[in-house]
Amino acid sequence: MSDQMSDPPSDPTPPRPVVILVEPQLAENIGMTARAMANFGLAELRLVAPKGGWPKKGVRETASGATHVLDGATLHATVAEAIADLHHVLATTARERGQMKRVLGPDEAMRAVAARQQAGERVGILFGRERVGLSNDEVSLADAIITFPVDPKHASLNLAQSVLLVAYEWRRAAGLAQLPFDGEMRSPPAPREALLALFGTLEGALDRAGYFPPEKRGGMVRNLRDMLHRMQMTEQDVRSLHGALRALSREAADE
Amino acid sequence: MSDQMSDPPSDPTPPRPVVILVEPQLAENIGMTARAMANFGLAELRLVAPKGGWPKKGVRETASGATHVLDGATLHATVAEAIADLHHVLATTARERGQMKRVLGPDEAMRAVAARQQAGERVGILFGRERVGLSNDEVSLADAIITFPVDPKHASLNLAQSVLLVAYEWRRAAGLAQLPFDGEMRSPPAPREALLALFGTLEGALDRAGYFPPEKRGGMVRNLRDMLHRMQMTEQDVRSLHGALRALSREAADE
Repeated sequence: MSDQMSDPPSDPTPPRPVVILVEPQLAENIGMTARAMANFGLAELRLVAPKGGWPKKGVRETASGATHVLDGATLHATVAEAIADLHHVLATTARERGQMKRVLGPDEAMRAVAARQQAGERVGILFGRERVGLSNDEVSLADAIITFPVDPKHASLNLAQSVLLVAYEWRRAAGLAQLPFDGEMRSPPAPREALLALFGTLEGALDRAGYFPPEKRGGMVRNLRDMLHRMQMTEQDVRSLHGALRALSREAADE
Repeated sequence: MSDQMSDPPSDPTPPRPVVILVEPQLAENIGMTARAMANFGLAELRLVAPKGGWPKKGVRETASGATHVLDGATLHATVAEAIADLHHVLATTARERGQMKRVLGPDEAMRAVAARQQAGERVGILFGRERVGLSNDEVSLADAIITFPVDPKHASLNLAQSVLLVAYEWRRAAGLAQLPFDGEMRSPPAPREALLALFGTLEGALDRAGYFPPEKRGGMVRNLRDMLHRMQMTEQDVRSLHGALRALSREAADE
């Protein structure tokens, strides 16, 4: 990870969707929203008439390192004002609204958003109030609806959790979702010669220890080799096992 | 939504991964973890030595409706004890550990988990302490690593947010991720006859209003029809537009 921290992968900073919170109430939800946005590379936050005013006490603490998102947040009196410069708007809602709009999951929605951004469109996503969500009139200002594939028995997603899922899916749709590190082997795969030598050492030690009933030796040896093959050992792994085996054999010889 | 609330889609309750929080500290993170689990249909929570004891004050408030997850949570002294009855264990971490394990994103990891569960395996997922995550020794108890495709500049995911992403991807991998409602049209698509009648009414009204320069009428009419086609109108849409058009024409006639 330290390599990557000092030399982050080049990020083409494509256009990113704007996150618009409508009358958010809790400082913690706004802070956690900023954090979730930053986790997946979103940066532009707009607040429509936050309850209790802005800035809110305690919001920076819950944003973790994402204070740049809070510092850049803009305030708007109405949803109409907050979306005026955008070309495409999505509304998140957990409830059916009786509006004949397209209804998309966050994955499908973000794939469509990434395609629109490629074509130069600016896209915003509306998130409603903590308790009551967006009003029907606010939803009617959107081109389409995003909803989440939740368990219908526990459908109430936290505000920042909804933002997180959208940001996560946007990052994937935009082709930026590389894992920060991988499970690359730090030692090359063991050459068969090294593995065969290990088999020989192990089987010889077990022969000396009287482990194999003679009539079953063939099958037992093959099973042991199967287990060792499944480990897909590196050169280093073979050296380590060889060393462990020698230590056990020495101990046996000393007894 | 009300239909679905009274008659939820049948949920085969397949085996679900166990969520294991290792020394979690904040009541709010445990409550939000329970809520995130319930949102995506997970139910089994294990707590390894929660800091400050258990139950924690305030935890139920942040769990929203997911108190059944908290009530069913079990306490364990060590990770080894918490995973003893499981067949496969994944460790979540944001940091490279120098352990040669497979490293998976939550999507790929949960597809593999769903396949193991089909084969009858019980699977658990380890989540570390808020500030320092899992120890290297705890990671070494896992079969593979889950990490998240975050922006490397803001890699610190909140604990409950990590659980949410895993639960979300599990629900998708298990084939349970239906959206709670869709954008189904509540009126059938308009038959061409109704649409052609609307074209006729609109074009006649615009003719009477002197809207079309004669030499451009053909192209302008085709453009208007294109716009109306893009609306993919239902029968009800055509009736509504027809009514709006008649109202405008009456107003014009009254002038």
